[in-house]
Formats: sequence, C-alpha cells, structure tokens
Amino acid sequence: MTAPFKDLLIIDLTHVLAGPYCSMILSDLGARVIKVERPGTGDDTRHFPPFRANGDSAYFATINRGKESIALDLKDQADRIVFEDLLSRADILMENYRPGVMERLGYGSETLHKQFPRLIYGAVSGFGHTGPEALKPAYDMVVQARGGVMSITGEKDREPVRVGASVGDIVAGMFLGHGIMAALYQREKTGLGQKVDVAMLDSQLAILEHAIAITGETGNAPGPSGARHPSIAPFETFHTEDGLIVIAAGNDDLFAKLCNALEIPALSTDSRFSTNAARCEHVKLLKRLIEAVTLGDTRAHWLDKLTTSGIPCAPIQNVAEAMRDPQILARDMVIDVVDPHGGPAYKAAGNPIKLSAYISEKPSLISPQLNAHSDSIRGWLKEQK
Amino acid sequence: MTAPFKDLLIIDLTHVLAGPYCSMILSDLGARVIKVERPGTGDDTRHFPPFRANGDSAYFATINRGKESIALDLKDQADRIVFEDLLSRADILMENYRPGVMERLGYGSETLHKQFPRLIYGAVSGFGHTGPEALKPAYDMVVQARGGVMSITGEKDREPVRVGASVGDIVAGMFLGHGIMAALYQREKTGLGQKVDVAMLDSQLAILEHAIAITGETGNAPGPSGARHPSIAPFETFHTEDGLIVIAAGNDDLFAKLCNALEIPALSTDSRFSTNAARCEHVKLLKRLIEAVTLGDTRAHWLDKLTTSGIPCAPIQNVAEAMRDPQILARDMVIDVVDPHGGPAYKAAGNPIKLSAYISEKPSLISPQLNAHSDSIRGWLKEQK
Repeated sequence: MTAPFKDLLIIDLTHVLAGPYCSMILSDLGARVIKVERPGTGDDTRHFPPFRANGDSAYFATINRGKESIALDLKDQADRIVFEDLLSRADILMENYRPGVMERLGYGSETLHKQFPRLIYGAVSGFGHTGPEALKPAYDMVVQARGGVMSITGEKDREPVRVGASVGDIVAGMFLGHGIMAALYQREKTGLGQKVDVAMLDSQLAILEHAIAITGETGNAPGPSGARHPSIAPFETFHTEDGLIVIAAGNDDLFAKLCNALEIPALSTDSRFSTNAARCEHVKLLKRLIEAVTLGDTRAHWLDKLTTSGIPCAPIQNVAEAMRDPQILARDMVIDVVDPHGGPAYKAAGNPIKLSAYISEKPSLISPQLNAHSDSIRGWLKEQK
Repeated sequence: MTAPFKDLLIIDLTHVLAGPYCSMILSDLGARVIKVERPGTGDDTRHFPPFRANGDSAYFATINRGKESIALDLKDQADRIVFEDLLSRADILMENYRPGVMERLGYGSETLHKQFPRLIYGAVSGFGHTGPEALKPAYDMVVQARGGVMSITGEKDREPVRVGASVGDIVAGMFLGHGIMAALYQREKTGLGQKVDVAMLDSQLAILEHAIAITGETGNAPGPSGARHPSIAPFETFHTEDGLIVIAAGNDDLFAKLCNALEIPALSTDSRFSTNAARCEHVKLLKRLIEAVTLGDTRAHWLDKLTTSGIPCAPIQNVAEAMRDPQILARDMVIDVVDPHGGPAYKAAGNPIKLSAYISEKPSLISPQLNAHSDSIRGWLKEQK
C-alpha cells in the first residue's frame, strides 16, 4: 500500500490556483510538496475569503492541505543557497510566473537542466511560454472568456456566464499534472528531466470537444444551450411538482425506457421522437410533453421511479447537499482535514483518484502556516550533507 | 524527441467521452491506443452529430484521432482469444462499463491481475466501483447536477445552467489519466500493475474548490454568481460601447492600475474600494462606476489600453473566434487532422501538454473507421508469436 509518488520531492513556487491544484494532486498521490512562498505575505490566496474562525483562509486551506511551507526571498543570497540546496534534492520544480521571470532570477529551465539534469521543470502560465502574447497576465475568467467556454455556457439570448468552478485554472493544473507525470515516466528510461509548459488558454481549447467539432465542420460557433446538451435529447432539466431534476436519456433504448416509466410509451415510436436527431429537432415539444407528466409528482417520486427503470437522472444539488450525499461520502470525497496541534478540523474535497494499491492518507493533514516548516526543512537539508 | 509513452499499448474498451478523452491524452503523449468496439455499431459517438460530408461523426473524429479500431464481440469465443492476446501484450486496459460487467465477462480486474500482473486496469464510471449507488447509470449532466457544479453556474435567481463543455466527463477522464500515469510510474518500481477507479461524480466534487471552502466554513452553499468571481472584485464582465469584455483585477495593485487606466484614480483610495473585501461589498456600485467609463469606447480600445497597463482582460470570444486567435494558433492548439488516404482534413483541438523533449505528431492522424485496423492488428499479433 505504498503511495506511487512517495519518494518524490516537489519544490513548488506556484500560487493561487492552477499550480497549487496540480501539486495537491501530486501530494495526494504521495509526493512531498515544499511550498516556497514570498516572505511576509505568502501565497495570495492566504488572504482570500472565506476565513476560518482562526483567521486563516479556508480557500487556501482546502487547496494546500498536506504541504510544507518555507518563506524564501529568491533575490536574497542566503535564501538562494537554501533554494538551490532544495533543488539539488528535488525531482520537480513547479512555477507559475510570467515567462522570463525565472530566467531573470537565474533559474531558467535551461540553466537548471544543465545544473540538475534529472530535475523536471513544470510551468503553468496564462498564455504559455511561446507565442505573441506569452507575456500577458491572465486569471481564470480571462481564459474562460477568451478560450470560448463562456460563450457556450449560459442561457440563450442572455449574457454568457462564468463556469462556477474555476476551470480556467483547474483544468490547466490538471494538464500540468499529466505533463509532469509523463516526464517522470520518461525520466525512468532516460535519466533526464525536461520542461513542461502548460497554458491556461490552451487548456480551455482542449476541453471544448463538441463545440470544436461543430465549429470546425459548419463554420458556425454554437451559442450557450442553457441547461441542455446541445445535440442529445432528452438531456436537460425538467420541472416536477417541487423543483427541477435532470434526465439524461442518451440513446433510443433509454428513451423508450423513459417513455414507459412516464406512462407515455407511444412517444418512443412517434416519428417526431423515434431518433435522437428527430428528438433534437422537436426538443421544445418533447420537453413540454415530458413536463406535462413530471409536474404531476415530486422530485423524489420521479428520481426513485426513473432510477428503478435504469434511466440516468439526478437532483440538482447545491454544494451543501452534494457534501452530504451518501454516495459521495462513501467514496471519501469530503474529508475532515485534521490539525495535529489540536485546532479545529475543516472540510475539503477528497482525492478522486482511487488506486487499488494505495489508500490515500495525506489529504487529512492541514495546510501549513506561512514558513511553518522552515526549521524542519533546514534541519533536514543539513542531515542530507 | 521521443514520446514519453511511445512503447505503451493501451487496449481501450471505453466509449462516448470520459474514457476516450483519457486515451486521447495518452495517445497524444505517444501511446498506441487500440480501440475495441462493439461489432456493427461501434462507439455510440460514431452516431452523434455534427456529421462530416462523408457521413462520419465530427464529434467522434475529434476525440478519437490517432487511435486504431478493431471490432470484437467479447462474448464470442474467437474474439475473446484475440482480446486476450491483445491483453497479454498491453500495458493498460481501460473500460467504462458499469461495475460488474467486466467480472461477468470473465475480465474482472482481480482475475486479470492474476493473469497479467503488469497490466494496469483503468476504470471510469458514473459513481465509482464502491458505495451504495455504484451500479447506477450516469451521463455528464447527471453528475454536473448532482455534484454541485450546476448549482454554482448561471445567473442569480434564475435556473442553473449546464457548463457548456462536458466537464462531467472530461474532468473524470483527466483524473483517470493521472491515476494511470501514477500506476505506470509505480510499476517501474514494483513490476506490478494495479486498478484505477475514477468516478464522474467524485470528479465534480474535486473541482468545486472555492464552493467547498465556503460551504464547509459557513454551512451555506453558494448560489450561481453569473459572470463574476464570487469573492474577488473587480473580476467580471463589463459593457463597452460595442460589447462585453472581461476584466480581472485580482489584487489591490492591479485595481490601482485599472483605476489609473480608466482615469478614475481616486477610486483606488476610496474606502469603499480600497481592499478586495470592500470591493466585494460594493461590487454593484463598482461595476456601474467602471461601466460609466467603459461604455464610452469600444472593446478594442479598452482591451488595448488595459493590456498596455498590464491588467488581465479579454474579449468574450465564441468558439470560431477562439479557433482563429493568433496566440492559440501559435501554440498549435487548433490542428488539421489529415487523412492519409486523401479524404478532407478536419479541425481538432491540439495537445495542451507541451514537453521540451517531445513535439507531438500523432494528433494529426485521423480517427479510425470501425474495425479499420482489424487486419493489421491481427497480423501484428501473429508476428509477435
């Protein structure tokens, strides 16, 4: 039951979300993450709401659980010696500065590759390290807007909305994770590290899927499709007596089962609804016909009945409801992060990567106070000499 | 310039999106992916719109580029021999059946682990292989709804909307990718494969970040926040003379620069706006004051001016605009997928994982026709004996 990345040391210069999200994934899989922070203020998100009773940012705490913190000024000579000592022992260096910043500090990827040939250099930035706009700053919403995701999210004929989760950052952090893991695997063969360069904007393009296919084929960009899938029907929200549910009948077989469960079996052989293409064409009528039935009883009734019939369906849960969901709790996806010094525990999302040979334990350790591990890290470096 | 996963063979039983998205990532990093499809109909998405002029699904084509296809009936004895022959040579088996289906076929992960101890078994399912509702079916929108992401996406006081990109599937496919890569790395140490079990519902919890922190700390679930970040201001859309732009001034320094660029410098020292907490409290007033300026000129004017001032900002681009964006093109994020048999090329998203030691080439190969590689795969298996 050993963690896959148990012996790995990550030196993590990243802050806010994309980078720290990536190092959280690697930490959950066993890596030791030393977060190198700016003295005095640390990671920007230490100052982001909401705040815990002790004044700590709950936002910072959920993303940085299980990491160590040391404050170093990379322009200070004594601190640079500590930093380079860390690099000499590290497997991975992660940073999310704008391109050129690390070079000016004397820590560009090519310089480091010469000095530490096994070191993997992971960079995540708004627009990537190449291209005409590499130097521009970005935040999550900038790439959600520019990359097209906002244009397909929201209601038809209304202004586009932001995806409520910060997918501009998170998806980029996840691709950086893939790149670092691929580089780790390759290092087993070659003995050499390499640079991974992931852009938040690129990552938005990479998740467009269906919209890329439509635009590429027709030349016309799709707009937002509200609460339905743009090319499958029925696959959307439906009103019941006491609120909305989602029904996703993704093929003809499921549609026939749905019509039976709703006691309108003739619908499935009606030529207006007998194929997915026909259902998409008559999607508004189909919604009305289904709601004429579902409005007659409660969410609980229909979810139970449709589930029994094998039809994919769900309540639209808010985050509090999701955090109490029995299936989600059974999967350890909401964890209590415990303070070994006796402070109050707090909630965080668990590790979604379930491995048969490793039950994750690290996520239950708290996030570090700024510079909390300075002494232990410096002591450890001395022991290594 | 070798691909990190050049020597890996993936046998891919998955269909629709989460699994095929994962095997696309692995394929882009060099793995050989043999897609094992149901005879006759193949992957469901072969029948999803939009369709290319030749009748192929453009949707299928974008996600399955660079893979090989063989049609096998896993209940047919002759086909099972071919399948097992493939497994004996494979590094990774991927499947997205409901839990229990592979066991009934005689290919449960424990059975396979005994027979092929190095084989990594990657499973992605709606609710995971454990927990009270493991056997329920799911689609993207079911987990977007149940996992809480829909509840934070959309406009306040209106019905929640679906995230336009299928993040219910895609994020799960990405976590499966992490799990498989971690298992590959561990296999280098232990010589043994293991099972990776990723649930689409779990994966939604894993991307909630901010909403988990708020709900965990306050007990109150956040609602949708339209087109703004829920706890940073200004970080939202603003009207100009000819349309919307996004401005994301994520800290006090950027806010001061923004006020200067808009020629309303007094705002940054006004006590209602001098800290992020104060700005969030007066966010509606702040939006009006900024729009009173931005409505006086065009999008192009403000994007240029704000960019020059170093303020993160962006146009809200539709997918067609994003696919022409010079920065996105410079990063090879929109590629022409070429048919070696002379059929017309088509567009797909490129590989966002840029590695210094490997320039991806595989994404430019087309997706396979159903069973197109049957002969070549069978021939290759014979050569291996």
